[in-house]
Amino acid sequence: MTDTVRVDGRTNDQLRPVTIERGWSDQAEGSALISFGRTKVLCTASFTNGVPRWMAGKGKGWVTAEYSMLPRSTNSRMDRESVKGRIGGRTHEISRLVGRSLRAVVDMKALGENTIVIDCDVLQADGGTRTAAITGAYVALADALEWGREKKFLSQKAQPLTDSVAAISVGIVGGKPMLDLAYTEDSRAETDMNVVVTGRGLFVEVQGTAEAAPFDRTELNSLLDLALAGTISLTEFQNTSLGR
Amino acid sequence: MTDTVRVDGRTNDQLRPVTIERGWSDQAEGSALISFGRTKVLCTASFTNGVPRWMAGKGKGWVTAEYSMLPRSTNSRMDRESVKGRIGGRTHEISRLVGRSLRAVVDMKALGENTIVIDCDVLQADGGTRTAAITGAYVALADALEWGREKKFLSQKAQPLTDSVAAISVGIVGGKPMLDLAYTEDSRAETDMNVVVTGRGLFVEVQGTAEAAPFDRTELNSLLDLALAGTISLTEFQNTSLGR
Amino acid sequence: MTDTVRVDGRTNDQLRPVTIERGWSDQAEGSALISFGRTKVLCTASFTNGVPRWMAGKGKGWVTAEYSMLPRSTNSRMDRESVKGRIGGRTHEISRLVGRSLRAVVDMKALGENTIVIDCDVLQADGGTRTAAITGAYVALADALEWGREKKFLSQKAQPLTDSVAAISVGIVGGKPMLDLAYTEDSRAETDMNVVVTGRGLFVEVQGTAEAAPFDRTELNSLLDLALAGTISLTEFQNTSLGR
Amino acid sequence: MTDTVRVDGRTNDQLRPVTIERGWSDQAEGSALISFGRTKVLCTASFTNGVPRWMAGKGKGWVTAEYSMLPRSTNSRMDRESVKGRIGGRTHEISRLVGRSLRAVVDMKALGENTIVIDCDVLQADGGTRTAAITGAYVALADALEWGREKKFLSQKAQPLTDSVAAISVGIVGGKPMLDLAYTEDSRAETDMNVVVTGRGLFVEVQGTAEAAPFDRTELNSLLDLALAGTISLTEFQNTSLGR
Amino acid sequence: MTDTVRVDGRTNDQLRPVTIERGWSDQAEGSALISFGRTKVLCTASFTNGVPRWMAGKGKGWVTAEYSMLPRSTNSRMDRESVKGRIGGRTHEISRLVGRSLRAVVDMKALGENTIVIDCDVLQADGGTRTAAITGAYVALADALEWGREKKFLSQKAQPLTDSVAAISVGIVGGKPMLDLAYTEDSRAETDMNVVVTGRGLFVEVQGTAEAAPFDRTELNSLLDLALAGTISLTEFQNTSLGR
Amino acid sequence: MTDTVRVDGRTNDQLRPVTIERGWSDQAEGSALISFGRTKVLCTASFTNGVPRWMAGKGKGWVTAEYSMLPRSTNSRMDRESVKGRIGGRTHEISRLVGRSLRAVVDMKALGENTIVIDCDVLQADGGTRTAAITGAYVALADALEWGREKKFLSQKAQPLTDSVAAISVGIVGGKPMLDLAYTEDSRAETDMNVVVTGRGLFVEVQGTAEAAPFDRTELNSLLDLALAGTISLTEFQNTSLGR
Repeated sequence: MTDTVRVDGRTNDQLRPVTIERGWSDQAEGSALISFGRTKVLCTASFTNGVPRWMAGKGKGWVTAEYSMLPRSTNSRMDRESVKGRIGGRTHEISRLVGRSLRAVVDMKALGENTIVIDCDVLQADGGTRTAAITGAYVALADALEWGREKKFLSQKAQPLTDSVAAISVGIVGGKPMLDLAYTEDSRAETDMNVVVTGRGLFVEVQGTAEAAPFDRTELNSLLDLALAGTISLTEFQNTSLGR
Repeated sequence: MTDTVRVDGRTNDQLRPVTIERGWSDQAEGSALISFGRTKVLCTASFTNGVPRWMAGKGKGWVTAEYSMLPRSTNSRMDRESVKGRIGGRTHEISRLVGRSLRAVVDMKALGENTIVIDCDVLQADGGTRTAAITGAYVALADALEWGREKKFLSQKAQPLTDSVAAISVGIVGGKPMLDLAYTEDSRAETDMNVVVTGRGLFVEVQGTAEAAPFDRTELNSLLDLALAGTISLTEFQNTSLGR
Repeated sequence: MTDTVRVDGRTNDQLRPVTIERGWSDQAEGSALISFGRTKVLCTASFTNGVPRWMAGKGKGWVTAEYSMLPRSTNSRMDRESVKGRIGGRTHEISRLVGRSLRAVVDMKALGENTIVIDCDVLQADGGTRTAAITGAYVALADALEWGREKKFLSQKAQPLTDSVAAISVGIVGGKPMLDLAYTEDSRAETDMNVVVTGRGLFVEVQGTAEAAPFDRTELNSLLDLALAGTISLTEFQNTSLGR
Repeated sequence: MTDTVRVDGRTNDQLRPVTIERGWSDQAEGSALISFGRTKVLCTASFTNGVPRWMAGKGKGWVTAEYSMLPRSTNSRMDRESVKGRIGGRTHEISRLVGRSLRAVVDMKALGENTIVIDCDVLQADGGTRTAAITGAYVALADALEWGREKKFLSQKAQPLTDSVAAISVGIVGGKPMLDLAYTEDSRAETDMNVVVTGRGLFVEVQGTAEAAPFDRTELNSLLDLALAGTISLTEFQNTSLGR
Repeated sequence: MTDTVRVDGRTNDQLRPVTIERGWSDQAEGSALISFGRTKVLCTASFTNGVPRWMAGKGKGWVTAEYSMLPRSTNSRMDRESVKGRIGGRTHEISRLVGRSLRAVVDMKALGENTIVIDCDVLQADGGTRTAAITGAYVALADALEWGREKKFLSQKAQPLTDSVAAISVGIVGGKPMLDLAYTEDSRAETDMNVVVTGRGLFVEVQGTAEAAPFDRTELNSLLDLALAGTISLTEFQNTSLGR
Repeated sequence: MTDTVRVDGRTNDQLRPVTIERGWSDQAEGSALISFGRTKVLCTASFTNGVPRWMAGKGKGWVTAEYSMLPRSTNSRMDRESVKGRIGGRTHEISRLVGRSLRAVVDMKALGENTIVIDCDVLQADGGTRTAAITGAYVALADALEWGREKKFLSQKAQPLTDSVAAISVGIVGGKPMLDLAYTEDSRAETDMNVVVTGRGLFVEVQGTAEAAPFDRTELNSLLDLALAGTISLTEFQNTSLGR
């Protein structure tokens, strides 16, 4: 499986170059500018003491996320959703995915009555924007939690993070399972899967879609193998960035 | 795994009673009122000769879907999305899922320049509305295609359907994998998965989400086993309904 | 006037077959699936203890209604108002009519600080959807009030209903006054009138519109005669359905 | 019935002072600033040669109307619908009523492929805004048609107006039928009716609503008598204004 | 500079005829119908005791403004922003300008916890609508403040107005600086400037825009000279109208 | 005037450090990531051959712009305009300003039937975002035009740029005129002015606003002096970045 050479010279089980600029923003409590190859996503985590009124008094916190693409992050310009006056289905879907993925590694009781809003804005898109967003957002989240601890909104002993989380895309392209699809690969994939995995190797989300051809269980298993290997690497990038 | 008894007396690998009232609507080219237990979804398929302008001249058709819930389909009344003036993320996500699932079994070339719009309106909700919607929509779609053939919008030889498609939810509840979750089961599931499978047993969509606890590969495999068994039964219900 | 035979064989003063499936919904406090011929409307009544903040503390309740059509309830598919992001004038107008009609027979003091939201969703449309909606909604409302009494949100002695209410369309088609217009009749009517009448025979709403030709007082009187006769029958159907 | 004295000294069958400033606008093809007492409505008629694309080629014209209130036309300021981003039900309903009322006296064939848009903007509101709007809009419409004739968009012989049209409100207040309700009367009326009548005395619209108490046939007849007398006077004001 | 004769016979430094009908509205606490030539703007000021919740408890008031054009105020009909469901950029921009201009002459402490909402609705447009709006709105504001004083919402000694404010447009047309541009002049101006000036002659806003050709400092100075002279006249009109 | 020291050590007539990363985006035809101190704006220029239908056939091009802020570009998170479903007044106003400023230096005839859309997305905000946007957008625009020339959408001889354009903010803070206000300065400025100037030193826009105190002509002149000096420096940065 690893002997094929792709457009950018990678083997099928190889990630694109990953960089994480932790603390990119001077304004946010946590932030990371992450790149998977040419895909660049600015992730910020905004920490607010307190929760929305409907959650107050339960001793629990809340984590939510919003994802968006700049209009010219893509090869041809897209209309802005703010100008159209409505958010598209894809944006909604990815925002919800990012939020669920991060909540899966946060103990809301340990977070206490604090709210964290994650923003993932795609500055440049070349496939894998949602997986880069989740992977970068985790770094921003971890820093926002440290900020909350320093400001005493969290107790010294509180451990809101139960695990880390990262995500990668995999797919079957030209009959071959491949890791971390670039846009040109993604657009001709028969099957496309996004997999969100914790640092301990457990699944948070498995979203496989037959774009062109339904897939069988053997193919599903190959894709999951690739994804689990990929997320191990991403977890290491996250840990290095966070100085762990 | 099959010895547990659930709230409604089912075993863990048992579907709720399934009924399909094919041709429920006098107006639509194809229709089905499907129930999975107390969940009832009215599925209609509207066949239009021609395609949107941006697709014209390519000799291909288009299939799209919209999902919606009546405001009092649920236990407490929800605000109407038409009144709020915007469609929520969940609605968008499910509409997209239903559309992709049906397109996976349609040969757009064989469909020719015709458009089919699927509407899935949940009249009563008790878990599994999206999977009932997909399963019922296939029946409505099949009838709309026959209508198109009778009206000569499709040639006698055209075979736009490459396979059938059905969907079911599975999940881990109280540590046990279960098939076809009712609402009370779904709301306390640790992991929840919707699986869309063709009549030939191939995957179209696998969407697993760790609601409360990340899951491992063994659990994933158990869930897929349950789902594949469940969709075999659903395929039979579809075939019976269609008189095949 | 009664000797003409219409498309479906009715005489000019004859209603289409009326059915009322009381308690159709397992979820709502009151519900009815009503049909006037091929027109089918699902009416639910949602009872909530309490009133909106701006009404609180006055010892009075509130009844409101929303009307909507499924996109393929009609002969050709309509766009969803939720997708368009705005409610059309006709929908607004009918929702307001249904709400006013029901409030006309409710004593808001006797209702106390409780809110009832009526939803009328047209599953299939063949003319007369607004009148079927009002007629069915009364049944749902009556049951929701009984539910409130059982739950002790209403006192045993409270009599919020001051009368019953039903509605029917009448019109002048081909120069002849007719009762309960089906869609094909309605679309070629010179004059169209919707009349809402209480069980005691008093008018709640009279909405007559010259679609093609202004009408004189004699014609108006003939239409009112037909409507009053029609609503007497509808009141009997309601009473039978409610077991009175 | 005529011996009662109202707040402003009128008898029950008396109109408020009516003024029509024909040609108020320098910009519109036809215009009238009409007042019914303190109620002031600016009506403009915009004549455009041609029709919307979906109507083209049928040799027929189109007349449509929009009604709106300035935010401080009323006693306490209302939010602007443009700021809220949506039009309310009442606005929709009245816009539709004004449009239907005018179309009832226009022969679309004689109008040819021309479009007239009527705008009725309430500058000051004191009851009866919709009836003043219809009455003033007819004057604006008549002038816009003359403009079209001068500009040769209509042939010299074309007679698009088949009749004139005017409207008035009537109601039962304190048990007595009254003509042309001012706001304080309207807000405590048991029954409120808007009646649209042609110059020849035929009904275009009869919209009676039991605001507080259902009404019987005798009351309905009294209201219609009042309305027919009132619209005869309004027709005279229109004719005088138009120099007929 | 003053020897040129314009389309309407004015010299370059001459205002169009200005009229102010103070107290035009029976409903608003303050109002003025102002005209600059054919441009007519109805300005109302709505005084409310109290401030929005987010401002409460600070002992300060708030003044805000909304500007809008009637659809047929212009030579060809514009779509209504309420119908389009969104406010355009120009409307937003002018509403903000009017609000800022008035706030510049109000001492919010002296106003106390009271809110004034200014509405400027353009009934007829022929250039200079925003400057007429500001000039008329000041008159309406002054009257609304007097109303508040009479109603004891303001103390007898409170002096919320620190100055008066008026506005005028100037521009370079055909190479010549001109005062108070009518629409036909504005549409062919090389440079267009709106200047808001207090009664004491201080600038509140200077908004100069090179529509067709960038301008130099000499031109800027000529325009400011014209504007300052024009606003002196407008201040006199305001004072006369207010009986000062 | 130059002897005062500001929070960040600058003199009153000193710009913050300016950087321009030309060609930051791999996707857009022209792009620049510009920073004025901590303010960072990503500017892209999208070149499309052809113009909107309503402009076609006139031999002229079009340049338009959209400005937006990332939700956490600011010190506390703002709601996204796409989520709110409407664009705020400030966003509209700045988008229009950027578009007008660039159009002032483009010869639309020389551009031919080509469209350029400028996107200015604020990644981090610390005052002066609109002036940085204009200054960076010019660089992106220049590169997009070169791209169009290479692709032969522009002839070799066409000179669409008639000049360069840059912008800077100035204001009176604590009684002293200052150049290039940072956020903390801007928020306590008595007067705030944005000035857009061409490379030749001509004004394109002068927008001065008395935030707290009206200003006199001497102050206005001091601010213009500062702005003209500042834009000379910005023009040099632009030229250096463009390799001129």
